[in-house]
Parts: sequence; structure tokens; C-alpha cells
Amino acid sequence: MSLEIEKDFSKVGLPPGTLVHVGDQKVDQVQISIMDYDATKLWESEVPSLEDYMSSKNSPSVTWISVNGLHDLERIEEMGQFFDLHPLLLEDVVHTEQRPKMDEFEEHLYCVVKVWLYDKMNHQIQEEQISLILGNNFVISFSEDQKDFFDPIRKRLRKGKGRIRKMGADYLLYALLDIVIDNYFVLLKQLEEVVEETEDELMNQPSSMTLQQIYQLKKQTLLLSRLIHPLEEVLRKLMGGETEWIADTTVLYFRDLHDHCKRVTDTLNSYRDILSGMVEMYLSLMSNRTNDVMKMLAIIATIFMPLTFIAGIYGMNFEHMPELKSSWGYPIILTLMALVGIGMSWYIKSRKWL
Amino acid sequence: MSLEIEKDFSKVGLPPGTLVHVGDQKVDQVQISIMDYDATKLWESEVPSLEDYMSSKNSPSVTWISVNGLHDLERIEEMGQFFDLHPLLLEDVVHTEQRPKMDEFEEHLYCVVKVWLYDKMNHQIQEEQISLILGNNFVISFSEDQKDFFDPIRKRLRKGKGRIRKMGADYLLYALLDIVIDNYFVLLKQLEEVVEETEDELMNQPSSMTLQQIYQLKKQTLLLSRLIHPLEEVLRKLMGGETEWIADTTVLYFRDLHDHCKRVTDTLNSYRDILSGMVEMYLSLMSNRTNDVMKMLAIIATIFMPLTFIAGIYGMNFEHMPELKSSWGYPIILTLMALVGIGMSWYIKSRKWL
Amino acid sequence: MSLEIEKDFSKVGLPPGTLVHVGDQKVDQVQISIMDYDATKLWESEVPSLEDYMSSKNSPSVTWISVNGLHDLERIEEMGQFFDLHPLLLEDVVHTEQRPKMDEFEEHLYCVVKVWLYDKMNHQIQEEQISLILGNNFVISFSEDQKDFFDPIRKRLRKGKGRIRKMGADYLLYALLDIVIDNYFVLLKQLEEVVEETEDELMNQPSSMTLQQIYQLKKQTLLLSRLIHPLEEVLRKLMGGETEWIADTTVLYFRDLHDHCKRVTDTLNSYRDILSGMVEMYLSLMSNRTNDVMKMLAIIATIFMPLTFIAGIYGMNFEHMPELKSSWGYPIILTLMALVGIGMSWYIKSRKWL
Amino acid sequence: MSLEIEKDFSKVGLPPGTLVHVGDQKVDQVQISIMDYDATKLWESEVPSLEDYMSSKNSPSVTWISVNGLHDLERIEEMGQFFDLHPLLLEDVVHTEQRPKMDEFEEHLYCVVKVWLYDKMNHQIQEEQISLILGNNFVISFSEDQKDFFDPIRKRLRKGKGRIRKMGADYLLYALLDIVIDNYFVLLKQLEEVVEETEDELMNQPSSMTLQQIYQLKKQTLLLSRLIHPLEEVLRKLMGGETEWIADTTVLYFRDLHDHCKRVTDTLNSYRDILSGMVEMYLSLMSNRTNDVMKMLAIIATIFMPLTFIAGIYGMNFEHMPELKSSWGYPIILTLMALVGIGMSWYIKSRKWL
Amino acid sequence: MSLEIEKDFSKVGLPPGTLVHVGDQKVDQVQISIMDYDATKLWESEVPSLEDYMSSKNSPSVTWISVNGLHDLERIEEMGQFFDLHPLLLEDVVHTEQRPKMDEFEEHLYCVVKVWLYDKMNHQIQEEQISLILGNNFVISFSEDQKDFFDPIRKRLRKGKGRIRKMGADYLLYALLDIVIDNYFVLLKQLEEVVEETEDELMNQPSSMTLQQIYQLKKQTLLLSRLIHPLEEVLRKLMGGETEWIADTTVLYFRDLHDHCKRVTDTLNSYRDILSGMVEMYLSLMSNRTNDVMKMLAIIATIFMPLTFIAGIYGMNFEHMPELKSSWGYPIILTLMALVGIGMSWYIKSRKWL
Repeated sequence: MSLEIEKDFSKVGLPPGTLVHVGDQKVDQVQISIMDYDATKLWESEVPSLEDYMSSKNSPSVTWISVNGLHDLERIEEMGQFFDLHPLLLEDVVHTEQRPKMDEFEEHLYCVVKVWLYDKMNHQIQEEQISLILGNNFVISFSEDQKDFFDPIRKRLRKGKGRIRKMGADYLLYALLDIVIDNYFVLLKQLEEVVEETEDELMNQPSSMTLQQIYQLKKQTLLLSRLIHPLEEVLRKLMGGETEWIADTTVLYFRDLHDHCKRVTDTLNSYRDILSGMVEMYLSLMSNRTNDVMKMLAIIATIFMPLTFIAGIYGMNFEHMPELKSSWGYPIILTLMALVGIGMSWYIKSRKWL
Repeated sequence: MSLEIEKDFSKVGLPPGTLVHVGDQKVDQVQISIMDYDATKLWESEVPSLEDYMSSKNSPSVTWISVNGLHDLERIEEMGQFFDLHPLLLEDVVHTEQRPKMDEFEEHLYCVVKVWLYDKMNHQIQEEQISLILGNNFVISFSEDQKDFFDPIRKRLRKGKGRIRKMGADYLLYALLDIVIDNYFVLLKQLEEVVEETEDELMNQPSSMTLQQIYQLKKQTLLLSRLIHPLEEVLRKLMGGETEWIADTTVLYFRDLHDHCKRVTDTLNSYRDILSGMVEMYLSLMSNRTNDVMKMLAIIATIFMPLTFIAGIYGMNFEHMPELKSSWGYPIILTLMALVGIGMSWYIKSRKWL
Repeated sequence: MSLEIEKDFSKVGLPPGTLVHVGDQKVDQVQISIMDYDATKLWESEVPSLEDYMSSKNSPSVTWISVNGLHDLERIEEMGQFFDLHPLLLEDVVHTEQRPKMDEFEEHLYCVVKVWLYDKMNHQIQEEQISLILGNNFVISFSEDQKDFFDPIRKRLRKGKGRIRKMGADYLLYALLDIVIDNYFVLLKQLEEVVEETEDELMNQPSSMTLQQIYQLKKQTLLLSRLIHPLEEVLRKLMGGETEWIADTTVLYFRDLHDHCKRVTDTLNSYRDILSGMVEMYLSLMSNRTNDVMKMLAIIATIFMPLTFIAGIYGMNFEHMPELKSSWGYPIILTLMALVGIGMSWYIKSRKWL
Repeated sequence: MSLEIEKDFSKVGLPPGTLVHVGDQKVDQVQISIMDYDATKLWESEVPSLEDYMSSKNSPSVTWISVNGLHDLERIEEMGQFFDLHPLLLEDVVHTEQRPKMDEFEEHLYCVVKVWLYDKMNHQIQEEQISLILGNNFVISFSEDQKDFFDPIRKRLRKGKGRIRKMGADYLLYALLDIVIDNYFVLLKQLEEVVEETEDELMNQPSSMTLQQIYQLKKQTLLLSRLIHPLEEVLRKLMGGETEWIADTTVLYFRDLHDHCKRVTDTLNSYRDILSGMVEMYLSLMSNRTNDVMKMLAIIATIFMPLTFIAGIYGMNFEHMPELKSSWGYPIILTLMALVGIGMSWYIKSRKWL
Repeated sequence: MSLEIEKDFSKVGLPPGTLVHVGDQKVDQVQISIMDYDATKLWESEVPSLEDYMSSKNSPSVTWISVNGLHDLERIEEMGQFFDLHPLLLEDVVHTEQRPKMDEFEEHLYCVVKVWLYDKMNHQIQEEQISLILGNNFVISFSEDQKDFFDPIRKRLRKGKGRIRKMGADYLLYALLDIVIDNYFVLLKQLEEVVEETEDELMNQPSSMTLQQIYQLKKQTLLLSRLIHPLEEVLRKLMGGETEWIADTTVLYFRDLHDHCKRVTDTLNSYRDILSGMVEMYLSLMSNRTNDVMKMLAIIATIFMPLTFIAGIYGMNFEHMPELKSSWGYPIILTLMALVGIGMSWYIKSRKWL
């Protein structure tokens, strides 16, 4: 996850509505699949033809058109014309660096969300943009390389159990968004493990690697919250009845989703605060350690410097040093040194450093 | 209290409304008890039958159904069907990692709150979720292992004194929430003791253990505020007449509860600020201490290094060192050393380090 | 001022409205005095009888009943019944750890405020709760030990000059609150002196005592703001015409009070920021000082270590050291030492430490 | 600019509306001047008589009464009665420690603003309160010692060019406030110079004086923002049409003023953030410097301590030390010392400290 | 980008609406060009005459008058009179230190925005103010030296493709603002590179230059956010239908612009947080390094000070030191030294510093 402005550069000065694919191409060919269902029947096609589109647009049954791969701009423009999608909408679909948002167009509701995959090896988070378009009786989902991501929904549709087959396209939108937010919990779980590992490392053997780890985690947490926050806003609008696209019976489900989303935000905030506390902790531990080292140094110096000085005095070569001649000189000086050593140690202890 | 996302993992991709028990099973068997009362009579049953439910649902008297243990999903689903509870509501009851919240369903008002027990030995806070459902003339409370938690209410109901027997199910909801918030004050009291102990330790003999203690306390305070804040929101809604479930005469009591809750928030905020101040204090004390140690070291070195050097000079073995022959050499050099030592001490004092 | 939850413990599980005196008993006996006045006459009694209450309740003149001492719960309950005070209101009167707040009951307006006394000896702030109840034509004030606190008002009432005798009970409430807020300015003035003393100490001779002083001041400022903030809210409501208890002509005075209160908040915020700056300053000064000490140490070591080493070389007892025999050896080595010493000093200066 | 509560002390317990002059008396005698004008004529008087007031109050032309000096309470009370000013308003005029604010009274609009003079010698900011009262067709301005402050307006009025003579009293209020805000830009300009000087000093030769300077600047910036913020609020109200005192054609000018005021706030905020960054920078530079000093010390000690030890060994007086007798002993040991010195230097370099 | 108040000084006391050119003159002569277009035809002039203005004002086609150079106040005043621009508006056009803002006048909509150029050599950001005036069927743009800045729009207009020729003056305003915001992305991209370079430097070889770099970047980020924030506000108003100047069909485009602007803010906020983290990191690394240096010093001193002391003892010249005579003395003492050295090393390791 870079700082997200990398390729915007290529669009400077172009007229609005010009399709420019911004993002990595991850699949060779655009894959489009259609599911068309109502409570009683389900029809699927992996290679839909124009007629399939046609029927999906007009039939009273709910249709889900899932597009995987965003680089074939012609194909997408074609779809856009077919479903009457606004040029600005299409521009955002292929420009995969949007903030999560919800836009209402005259004939469609457009949602942009982000999916995250945590690459635990490199402690990297990979991000992908998913566009969801809710129209009259149909949902179109666009992603770059997340063909399997929505498979649980496909399975539920095929099984035909539960509520999903009986409800409208708005419920399908909810179901897709639900999968997206479940994905966040998976990520949070993985992040949590890393945070706890780092905390253990901090408490037991902090190194400058620990600090870099904390720094990276803070950065990631920060960037994730920046993206979750607008999503919460989107869900608040969807659940709040501000839009006519969501039926009253479905609103309850979006409220639930909003709750989940808030929990994600809360958890991310907790992580951030905990990570801040960890930096503080690290600095304190370092200052503790410096203190310990300094104490050792000061103790050694305080004891041995005076002793070495005394030895130095009697190492001088003056001819007239009466002590040197005395046969008691050596034992007396050794005793003196012992007393000085003990005295210094006692003095140090009395200052309560140890 | 972990970071709270641990088991959400198990729900990825499941259809909404699927009951999955998330949390620790703490009792062997689900215990259900019923209290049915009005101003004049009280009826209790520890092992309620289906008929008991039936009568509680329809009778004009207030019924309190208390469920202890959440692992028996069939039983809970059964109750759900009987009382017509919404699938999303039931899902949240058994999934014990909700944020505190209030949801209004068509026939019920649903509140989720948290109860905390402070384990003073390990400085750990244990958390439990309590679900309260207010219906027409009845309240259902769900908890995992808090059978005795609401005993004060049971006693008051049995005694029949005070307002509680004369008022409706909304007042019962208030009474139960009141017990929950009283529980917070108990926790705060215990936390306060630990904070003050830690403050004493900090002022008198700070160690790296003190710092870890402060770090743990900050983390706990943080996580508690995260949970108290939404509860305050819930109470604000309940007292604000935004819901029709609370009678006007009872609203006053919820206002009182809201006041208490605000006091909890205030106190937690104070703790947090005080703990932050303590980290600052710790760092300052450490830097003070390093300073003291450094000063000692510098003083010793400043006095004894020049002296040792002088001794070193007259320890040299040159044949032609006239001073060595002079009989005044030794006393003169000793005097010189004394002067250097005094001069250095004086210089140090003049720099105001001591 | 402790962290304010100490005695709440004793109330866990009690039914709401149960009177429990929380706070220190400071007077032996409850003292009640009554002042009843209108523009033309004033009547006072220090030991009011039941009849006095009766007349104060019903007479068109304004009555001020001032209660000093809160431990005699029977007496207070009696008054409560007499004036028809709500049980929750009475509970808050004797439970002296409320946040400042304003509650409207059907027949009364209830305000809780805090009075602070600064004990300059121990740098402690003592807090007392004052409850003010505004009814139809009367004001009841409850305090623990602040008999003399409202004396300026008593004097103004007796003199009969100014506006106070001509206006209603709402103006009396204003006058009482005005005294309370004037009290805050006295406290701020005293705090300011301590802050300035501490600042002087910090700039001239910072010690770890200075730091503890700053820490204490920050803690106090924090706890005071926590209490002033809700009071500002109370005054905002009173001046905003949200309540019918305040006549339009009096609202202007409450607006003035709100202004004063905001000034208190502003000043407290300034103190807090200044104190934070002082901690920063302290840490910087400490790090400066460590720096100075280190520099001294480094300079001494850099100059004398090489010199001592040279002396050490010529202190070695090898038989074949030609330099030792030369009669120029000693002066040459002394010159060398001088050069090394000067060179090292010059090198240190060139590194701009001094 | 002290912490602003100094003299409030003197008012404790006084009835509201009592005039007490709080502030320094700066002029011997109160000076009052009147300008009365419309598009065609202008009349001025430096020593207005009662009749002048009378005519200014009733004439359809705009009158500006400018009062300089606030200590003569009788005179001010007289004016108050004449123009029917509310007692609370008069109280605030002479009590020169108000927050900037706007109060609407029945017959007047009352604004309090602050003027600042930067005394660059002592890095002190002097503050003066200006009260502006807008009545029907007249404006009264009160200040302590700012007779010349509004001279640009006087000149514009005398010249009669521009809009000012053609517009009403509300435009005069605008013009006066405009001068006040222009004064802030002058102050900001002066502050900016000091901030930049301090930044230069910080980058080139930071000392503890630099830190104190930053500390002082932060404190001043803080106190200024505290006063600018309520002024912005005042202008927001004046431009927002919340008051009837400002004609629609003049509102545009107040909007412009609000813009300027926001720029002042923005600039002050920038200063504050920059000053915070400077403290951080200072601490980092100090820690850098400590590091440099430490490195020097460590290098010296690491090289010379082992060498001195070796010299010490061969300075021992044992009779049986074969090395001492060998004629190669001395050169071998010298070589050994050279090798140790080089080895240590190499080791230090390899640890990348240098 | 200075702190932006430099030249406001020159305006103190001038009547509002006085034109004073504040900013650097960058072109010799004011250049004015006109483009007049509708869906079918386009007419351009580089040296427009008065008649051209006349026709542009009245014709139903859209006219874009682009003014480059702001120092010729007469010319601008002339235009102002011709197009009936409000004096306050003209004042802001030539006073190039406005905050971004939108003002509605009776006949015009006035927008001020900022354009930034990053001078990568000196890490300086140069800022220029662009004023956009939307009137009935025309847009006037004022800039100091950005003749080429809007060239992409000129090209699109000439080509006649896309939406731009078919839509009104409000769409032209959008197109111009779009170029401005695209400019921000270019700047962000450049800033990002510097931030990442600095991060690399920090992780690999932090020096005090790195810190100064971070400090500069923080300052720039800060000042940019201060300017972006009000622009976001402007766009929010334009897209929110609060003004009648924007047609419903164009509002969608402004919504898109607002989205882009929010992304700029988000990115700047991320930078700021990341830079704050970098300062923290720097301080931690420094304290790590001090620690390492200290450890080295302490280890050396701990090992060699006792050894030197022992050598010192046997360097004393007492006549009666039996050890000196013994032929085993020397090897025994050497062994003792070795043991002490090993013992000290072992002790140090046991304290886990290494």
C-alpha cells in the first residue's frame, strides 16, 4: 500500500470521463460471469453474451454481473453504454485509487470499497478496489483479481437456502459488502497477531528492529483507518434511509453492517493507541538501559580512579619518599586502598543508585 | 480482555442470522429462571416450562426471564421463535463480542452491555456480555455466567418494597442497567487503588516494573473507555425520548443513569490523563537519575584524571629529571596535587552542577 | 480532591432514591436559616420552625432556606417531603460526589455546583458540593460546611440596596451562583501564584521537586477543568432560555455568568498548556545539563587520557629505552605533552562543543 | 500579558453592575471627542458638552463618541445614564479583562475587542481593551490609552472620500474593527520576525536561551489564539445576519473582516505548530550533540585505555620480567601498542559510529 | 512559501476596497486573452479590445477572459468597472495572500484558489494565487504568471471534442478548478518522492540533515493543509447546491472534484502522520545509538580500569614488596589480570547488555 497518488499523474489535464486504467493488471483476460435468480430459479453463465445482458437488464429477477479484470477499457465502456452508466462512474471503476465512497446517480447507486490481503511474510498489506453498482434489479461488481472473493455468496445463491434468494438486489449488495467487511476482520486478526508478537518482543528483547516493526505497524494502521472511516460514512448513509435504493426491510441489515464497521474502526483505533504506547515504552526501556550502563560505568570509575591515583603516587620516582623505605608502607597503603574502595562503594550505595 | 476480534474469524462468509456461539462456555447447562410480578403478587420459577413462557408473554404483569449460559443454541433459537426475536438480534446475543449498543426492532428494544470483573492478582479485567431485551411487559436478560449478578434486584422484587413492583418493564430494564453501572464503580474503585499504588511506587522507587504497570493500566483504561463511550450513547438515546419504549415517568431514572455513566467516563478520562502524566514523570525521573550518575562520573574523572597524570609524569624513568633528586620534590608535588584537586572541585562547584 | 469514586461503593445494589450520605461530616449539627424578603421588608430566622417553612412556601415574597450540614438524613428527608422534592434530587443532595449539573423536575430546578478552597500549605484543593434548588418563590441551598460562604449575599439582602431585593427567586439563584464563580477566580489567582513560583523555580534552579510540583499542578488543573466544563454547560442552558425557570430580565445576568465561567475555563486551559510547556522545558533543561556534564567529562578525558598514556610509556621499565638516557628526553617529552594537550584542546574547540 | 485574573479578586461578592475599574490608569484625564457626520457635512469637538451628546443622540447624522481613559467612573456612569447603557455593559467597559465578545442589549450592540502592542525589546505583548457600542445612529468607543489608534478613520472621515461618509453607524463600527484587525497583522508581522530569528538561532547555534525564547513565544501564541478565537465568533455572528444591527449592504464588509480574522487564526496556528516543531528539533539537536560528545569520549577511551594498561604492565617492578631485559622489548611493545591503537580505531569504524 | 503576512503591513488603515497589489510582479506587461465559444463556433483573441469585452458580456455564448499579471491596477480597475465587480472582490484579486475561499456577490461568484510549484532543488514550494470569477455566461481568471497553466483547457476548447463546448460557464469554472486540483496531485507526487527518500535516509544513515529535512517537510505539509482545508469547504458549498450559480447537471462534476480534494487532504494528513512517526523514529534511533556508544565505553572501562589498577599497584616503588622479588610474581599477576578481564567480561554479558 503506497501513499496512493502514484499514477494520478497520468491524468493531469485530461477531460473528465476519460477512461484511464490506473492500477496493476493482474489477469490476462477480463472475465465476466452472470447469475440471475429469484426465489424459485437460478441461472448462471460464465461467458455471457450481449443477449444475456439484455435479459438481465429487463427481467424482474435479480441479476449479478461480476466483472474480473479492469484493463480492457473498450469492453468496460461497452458495458457502461449498455447499462447507461455515467462517464464519471466508469472513470472511477477503472481508476483503482479512489477513497471508499458512495455516489448516487440518476439510475444507479455506486459504491467503491477496498479489500485487503495481508502478506504476512513481508508484513505488507495489498489492497484492491471493488466497485459495486446497484441498479434496478441488478448488481454489477468490478474487481481486478478477486474472482474467488465472492464465492461464499455464489454458494449461498446456488444452495438457495436462507434469505438471499427471496430478497432483492439491495440485499445482494448487502451480502457483497458483508463479505468485504468480514475480510477486514480476517485482516485485523492477522494484524493483531503481529501486534502481540511485537509486544512480546518489546517486553523481552527490544531491538531497533522492534522499533521499525512498530513504525511499520503504525503506518499501516494509519492508512487503514483512513480508508475505513469513509466506508463507515457510506454505511451510515445506506442505513440512514438517505437513499431510496435500499428497501426498509434491508435497512436493518445495513445497520448491522454499520455496527461491524464501527467495530473495525474501534479495533484499529485501539491498535493505534497501543502502538503509540509501545513507542513510549520502547523509549523508556532504552532510557532505562542507558541508565543501567551509565551506572555500571560510574561505579567502576568511582571505585578505581582514586585507587589508581594512589598507586600512581607511590609509583613516582622521587628519591626522598620516606613511605617507600618503610617496611610497613606497602601493607599500610594496601589497607588504605581497601578502605578507599569500600568507602566509595558505600558512598555509591548511600546515593541509592544500585 | 483481548483485542476482541479473535473468533469473528469463524463467521466469514456465513449468511447473516446464523447463530454461532462466540465466547467461552462457563456453565454446564443453560439455566433459565422466571419472575412474574405486579404491585400485589410475585411468582417465581427456576425451571420454567413452555406454559410459563406463554403466560409471561400475554399476562399484564411484568415478567423477567433470566437466561444464564449461551452455548445451547437450540434452546435459544426456540426462545427466539417463541418471543418473535429478530434473527440478527439472536445472532448478537450469542456472539458475545458486540460493542455496547441499543437496537430497536419492531417488537423489541435490544440492549447489549458489558460487565467487568477485575482480577486483582493478575491485574486482568475479565469481561462479560449481557443482553437485555425489553418487550411488551417482559424483559429477557442473557448472560454467560452471571447468575448472581442481578441478585440485588431479585431481593428487591421479593421484598416488594420501593418503587420496583409498582412500575413497568421499562423500570425493570432501568434497574438491571443500574446494577451494571454500579458494577463499573466497583471496578473504578479497584482500578483507582492500583493507580494510586503505582503512583506511590513511581514517586518512591520507580523501576521498569512500574513502567510496565503504567503501560498495562493505560491499555486497560483505553479499552474500557472504548466500551463505555457507546454505552453513554445508548443511555442518551433512552433518556432522550427517542424511543417509545420508555415511559415518561421512567425517563427521569434513565437520565440519572446517564449522569452516572458520564461520571464513569470522566473518571476513566482522568485516569488516562493521570497515567500519561505518570509516563512523563517516569521519563523525567529517569533523565534526572542519569543526570545524577553522570555528574558523579564527571566529578570523579575531572578530579582524578589530572592528578593521575601528574603522578604519571613523576613515574617516568628519565635519568635526568632534576625534580626527582630534590628533597623538596615529593612534598611540593603532593601540595601541587592537593591544589589541583581543590581547584578542580572549586571549578565544578562554580558550574553549579552540584 | 481524590479521584471521586471512593464511596460510591457503598451504594451498589441499593434501590434508587435511597438516601446515603456520601462525604465528610464537618459540622456537629445541621444549621438551617431562612431569609424571606421582598422589595420592602426582610425577615430572618436562624432556627426556623415548621411554620416558617409553610409560610415561605406559600408567601409571594422570596424565601431563601440555607441548610448547612448534610448528615442528618431524617431532617433532609423531612424537608424533601415538605417541599415535594423528587427522591432522585434528594439522593444527589446528600451524595456529595456529583458532577456539576442542572436537572429540571416538575416543580423544581436543581443545580449542583462545586466550591473549591485552596490549601496553600499542602498545595491541596479541597472541594465542597453545593446544591441549589429553585422553586416557586423560594431557593434552598444545601452545603456541608460553608455557612459563611454566602454571607456577602446576606449582607446585600439586609442592606436592601441594589437590584437584589426587587427581583425574584431566579435572581437570587443567579446571585448565589455568582458568589460560587467569584470563588473560582480566587482559586485561579492562588493557582496562578503557585504556577508562577514554579515557573521561576524552573527557570532558575530546577530540581526533581519542581517536576513533582508541575505534575501535581497539572493533575489539579485537569480535575478542575473536568468540573468546570459541565458547569459551563449548565449556565449555557440557563442563559439560553431552555428552561422556563429564568425570567427574561434575569437571563442577561446568567449570560454574564456564562461569560465569567468561560473565562475560568480559558484560564484553566492556559494553565494546562503552560504546565505542559513547563514539563517540556524541564526535560530540555535536563538534557542540556546532561550535555554540559558530558562535555566536561569528554574534554577532561580527551586531554588527559593521551597525556597519561605518554607518561605511562616512559614509566615502563625496559632496560633499553634510549630516550630515557638522553638528557634532553625529559624536556622533549614535557614539550610533546604540552603540544598534545594543546592540540586536543584545539581539536575539541574546532568541533564547536564549547 | 499576565494570566489575566489578577484583579478580579477585588470584585468578589460585589453586586453585579457595580463599576470597578480594573486595569492600569494610563492617562491623567478622561478625553472625550465627538465626530458627527453625514455625506455632506462633518462636525468635530474635542471637549463635548452635554448638549453635544444630546444632539448626537437624536440627530439623523452618524455620531462617533470616542472616550479615552477609563478611570473616571462617575463620568462614565453619567454617559451610561445618558445613553441608557445597561449596568452590566458599563461594568464590562471599565473592567478591562473581558474576553472578546458581542452582547446584544435592547438598545445597543456591545463589542469588546483587544488591541496588542508588541514591545520588541522585552519580547512582551501589551494588551489593551477597546469597547465599541453601536446604538441607533451613533457609535461609542472606549479605550484606556489609544487616542491615536483610530486616527486613520478620523482622517478618512475628514477627507470625506470613499464610502465611509455615505454609510451608517454600522459601517463606522466595521471601519473601527477593521483598524483593530489590521493591528493584528502588524503584530503577526513582528512575531513572525522573532519566530524566524529564533529558527535561525536554533539551526545555527542553539542554546538554552533559544529554548526559553521558544517557550515564551509558544506561551504568547497560545494566549493570543485564546483571544482571537472568540473574536472570530463575534464576527461570524455579525456577518451571519444573526443580529439586526448590521444592514445588508454592510454585512459584506463584515464577511471580509471575518476572512481577515480567520487568516490571523490560521497564521497563529501555523506559528504554534512551527514552534512545537522547533522544540522537537531542539530536543533532537541536543540528543545529537550528546551523541557526538559521547562518541568522542568513547573513542578516546577505547583507544587509550588498553594502551595505558599495556604501558602499566611494563611499568611494574617485578624483578623477573624477561621482556624488560630484552633489547627488542621496547620496540616490540611500541609496535604492539601501535597495532592495538589501529585495531581499536578500525573496530570503532566498523561499528559505524564515525 | 513564507508565513504569509509579510505585506499586509502596507494596508493598515487604508479604506476597504483600495487596490494595493500585494505579491511579486512576475511579468512585464499584463496579458489578457479572450476565448468565446459555444457548441458550434470558437473565437479567440490575444489582444482584446473594449468591444470584445462588450460582446463577451452580452453574447449568449460562453466567454473566458484570462488575465495574466496583476500589477497594472488601472487596467484591472477598468475591467472591474466594466464587469461591475465589487470593490472588495477586486481588492482580493490583486492582494495575492488570500485564503482559498468562495464569495457570492450579487452578480458574480468569486473563487480564490492556490497553485503550487515544487522547486525540488531547494525543497521549496512556490505558491501562486488564482482568482476565478463566474458571471452570467462568462468566467474571468486572474493569475500572476501562469499563462500556460490552463493550456490543456485551451486545447480542449479548440479541439471541440468532449463535453466542454456544449456546456455553460459553470462547467468552464469546473474545468479550470479541475486543472488546479490536478496540479495538487503533481505536487503530492513530488512530495511523496521526497518523503520516501527521507524515509530511506532515516532508516539507513540518519544524520542531523535528515532531521532538518523532516522538519522542513512537516512545515510544508502543515502549510499546505492549512490552504487545502478551506478549498475543500469551497467545493463542498459548490457541490451542495448552496449556490444558484451551478447548474444541476454540473453539480455532479463538482462532487467529483470534492472527492479529489478530499483525497488530497487525506494524503497530506497521511504525510503529516508519517513525518511525525519519522521524528519519533529519529529520536529513538539516536537514543539507540547513544546506548551503543555508552555500552562500548562502559565495557572498555569496566575491563581495563581494574586491570590498570592492578598494574599500578605493582608499579609502586615500595622497597618491601615481597611479590616483586618472587620469580613467580610476574606470571601469577598476569594470570590474575587475565582472570579479572575474563571475569569482568563474563559479568557484563550476564547483565545482558551485549
